[in-house]
Amino acid sequence: MDDRREGEIALDFDPVTRKDASVAFIGHIQTPWTSRDEAPRNVIEARERSTEPARITLDPAFAPGLAGLAGHSHVVVLYWMDKARRDLIVQCPRHSEGPRGVFSLRSPLRPNPVALAAVPLLSVDIAAGVLTVGPLDCLNGTPLIDIKPYYVSTDCHPTACSP
Amino acid sequence: MDDRREGEIALDFDPVTRKDASVAFIGHIQTPWTSRDEAPRNVIEARERSTEPARITLDPAFAPGLAGLAGHSHVVVLYWMDKARRDLIVQCPRHSEGPRGVFSLRSPLRPNPVALAAVPLLSVDIAAGVLTVGPLDCLNGTPLIDIKPYYVSTDCHPTACSP
Repeated sequence: MDDRREGEIALDFDPVTRKDASVAFIGHIQTPWTSRDEAPRNVIEARERSTEPARITLDPAFAPGLAGLAGHSHVVVLYWMDKARRDLIVQCPRHSEGPRGVFSLRSPLRPNPVALAAVPLLSVDIAAGVLTVGPLDCLNGTPLIDIKPYYVSTDCHPTACSP
Repeated sequence: MDDRREGEIALDFDPVTRKDASVAFIGHIQTPWTSRDEAPRNVIEARERSTEPARITLDPAFAPGLAGLAGHSHVVVLYWMDKARRDLIVQCPRHSEGPRGVFSLRSPLRPNPVALAAVPLLSVDIAAGVLTVGPLDCLNGTPLIDIKPYYVSTDCHPTACSP
């Protein structure tokens, strides 16, 4: 507190204090981005600004969980935006017209800072516990919390639209 | 421990003990499913077995975060599969041929039991903190951890394929 822009609304508590469950960091993501100022705003911008794949390294204990992932063209990566404040329930992103609720934004600032990217899977090395995927928008060293196979049947909605 | 099927491999620790970060439950999901035996295996099966929308109720503090969500045709819902064990790194799901790594499965049993569904958004009541969305596969009362707008530009990959 408090670098809020006009119109932004914060909760009167910090969700970090609500410890309803715990997350285990299962690995880390390596990207070219080392500061929040230079990091791209989203995965599309990451792709435009870098052709470098993101490299995901799992902690060794979790590496056997990669078995069977090779052959999937795309994966969903969930990562923990650990640098972001969690109490900003209404936000005014740059380039947005006026204040908007956090659940209508893909902002990293959210009650649970879980970011989601559905990206091409480029390589899998189970023994090393390393994946490469299409460019990601997160800072170098961002903690990984999950990887899931992407399914057209449930994840792809070509007719989806936004206001 | 231990109801493992043949070929399944457990970690030698429970990820629940790795408290790297904490999750705040921001609401709950109401579905027709009250036991794991009767719950559908995925969102497609949920849709086949029920036409009832899933009802999502946010805790009142978080309801203002819904502003701006109406008008999006689809949302991504993240929920916490709080009944699932977290240490099963290689699994043999029913109907699967042999053991597979957890990261190649959409199983609720995973190191961080975050489930993800991209579903139609049917209604938004900001004042009440209530959304209805297409059928979900989770048990009645499952904790909610996030809602995000779905974007065709980043989330929709019609050419994705699986082995």
